[in-house]
Amino acid sequence: MYKGYVRLWYEPQIWEPHGLQIEDSLLDLGKRRLKNMDEAGIDMQVLSLSTPGCEQFGATRGMALSRKTNEELHKAINKYPDRFIGLAALAPQSPEEAARELERAVKELGLKGAKINSHIRGSYLDEKKYWPIFEAAESLDVPVFLHPNTPNPSTIKPYLDHGFALAGPAWGFGAEAALQAMRLIYSGIFDKYPGLKIILGHLGEGLIFWMYRLDFSFKRPWMEEEVRPRIKRMPSEYIRDNFYVNTSGMHSVPAFLSVYLELGADHMMFAADYPYENSGEAARFIEEIPASNIDKEKIQHSVAEKLFKLA
Amino acid sequence: MYKGYVRLWYEPQIWEPHGLQIEDSLLDLGKRRLKNMDEAGIDMQVLSLSTPGCEQFGATRGMALSRKTNEELHKAINKYPDRFIGLAALAPQSPEEAARELERAVKELGLKGAKINSHIRGSYLDEKKYWPIFEAAESLDVPVFLHPNTPNPSTIKPYLDHGFALAGPAWGFGAEAALQAMRLIYSGIFDKYPGLKIILGHLGEGLIFWMYRLDFSFKRPWMEEEVRPRIKRMPSEYIRDNFYVNTSGMHSVPAFLSVYLELGADHMMFAADYPYENSGEAARFIEEIPASNIDKEKIQHSVAEKLFKLA
Repeated sequence: MYKGYVRLWYEPQIWEPHGLQIEDSLLDLGKRRLKNMDEAGIDMQVLSLSTPGCEQFGATRGMALSRKTNEELHKAINKYPDRFIGLAALAPQSPEEAARELERAVKELGLKGAKINSHIRGSYLDEKKYWPIFEAAESLDVPVFLHPNTPNPSTIKPYLDHGFALAGPAWGFGAEAALQAMRLIYSGIFDKYPGLKIILGHLGEGLIFWMYRLDFSFKRPWMEEEVRPRIKRMPSEYIRDNFYVNTSGMHSVPAFLSVYLELGADHMMFAADYPYENSGEAARFIEEIPASNIDKEKIQHSVAEKLFKLA
Repeated sequence: MYKGYVRLWYEPQIWEPHGLQIEDSLLDLGKRRLKNMDEAGIDMQVLSLSTPGCEQFGATRGMALSRKTNEELHKAINKYPDRFIGLAALAPQSPEEAARELERAVKELGLKGAKINSHIRGSYLDEKKYWPIFEAAESLDVPVFLHPNTPNPSTIKPYLDHGFALAGPAWGFGAEAALQAMRLIYSGIFDKYPGLKIILGHLGEGLIFWMYRLDFSFKRPWMEEEVRPRIKRMPSEYIRDNFYVNTSGMHSVPAFLSVYLELGADHMMFAADYPYENSGEAARFIEEIPASNIDKEKIQHSVAEKLFKLA
């Protein structure tokens, strides 16, 4: 087991009884969840296995859990098809099998894409061995939600010296997911699979704030190729074309505005981050953002409907 | 020598001839620099030793270089006292001596604070052994500019797999400086030295974008103290009170707005990042930001005049 891989990302005894309440909410795929959605005015929810997911196990166990999860998702969605869609859980430890499972999940189980929880037992998603998964996603024309996890074991040490919180949602989650996204961009994967779509949570994990500076090495012709990767476009261009961000857990108007002005509503989606955040607060946040009603509707549902092919 | 510590943060042969042109500009403390300021409409400039600074050497050599640098700064400033002020170079490897050097630099050489280039040969600034430096800064009522460097050697590996650029200004610089800042906050150093003032570059190294979420563990009473550090206030409160950010290298209106709306003009300062960025472009950026003239003046000069006690 890697650090951060103990029952969600925390140790259960620390967060009792609230950790268990969250777990109960996660496991309920019916009335409790629908009631929360109704109260917040949320019509549809995207279901997915919570972090750290199947990525934490050995390949065989991970794959078995991935298949079982996707079948459970399929059942829950079939029960309330007008309220739920789902993203497949994968076990990228077995890349070829994971690619086939994504295909099965989309074609046979009706799931709308995949969710991957950042690093795979310490290795990065841009490693070539994982590319069959992204090839399958592009070929199926479904997005991959790159969800955070605690930092890669090789970098986590400085996040743990002052209490575990710095490794979690307050900082390490975003640091890890953003580094993964940057590595994907630098790896050239979007040149190989130009139709690949990546979803980032938390208003883009900080990537959009840095958009101007991400191109630093690419706007300076005197920075030769030994320094920067051999990719065809500038990082910001891949982000604009290949990335979608959601608003999970970031009910901040200043942060929202920076992403909205940089990326535009066509690549932004509402997310409640249920049950970790308050769904009603999340929904009200979008109601009150300084944006046109057309853009609010895009963020609230139209972009997701198009991306997940619901219309 | 640590990675990233080879002549500035790059290897000279890679960036010829432009690396050498930058070096020439860095070393000139007279006409060439003043001409650039005049052309951009910049009245005063804060001089400091460029990253990675004295932090890369052994304690004895580092201290000697620190003293020499500060004396050189003093001379250059005395030559053009209405155009230059300076921040002391320190060698925190020798914390007590560095604290005394800061005192000498402020009291005897007229420097206005200190600049520290992130990690000290791989160790973090929040380690208790470095606190005498921050104690001195608080006692002298001068700010410490926490400047980025390439990531700490213990975390740098994943930044180096696709060309060196990810470890530099395009990503790693900010990741490292922000982690340092978060560790300072989590360490409780601002409870011990509540008057301590930290300057961050690049519009706050991403910290301000995350402001809402930085308090994640602190707004949830059920997250007990085993998870989060025992500090008196929420991270965002320390940032609001103890941090100043400058606009170096971030000529982005969306990013600017998020920081401006979150932090306010009273803690923001113009920076040109000479000679790494174009001073004229940096100055024009502030002229054109969507903010009141009063706030522009604060950002252009008033906040710095107050912080560095120039008025």
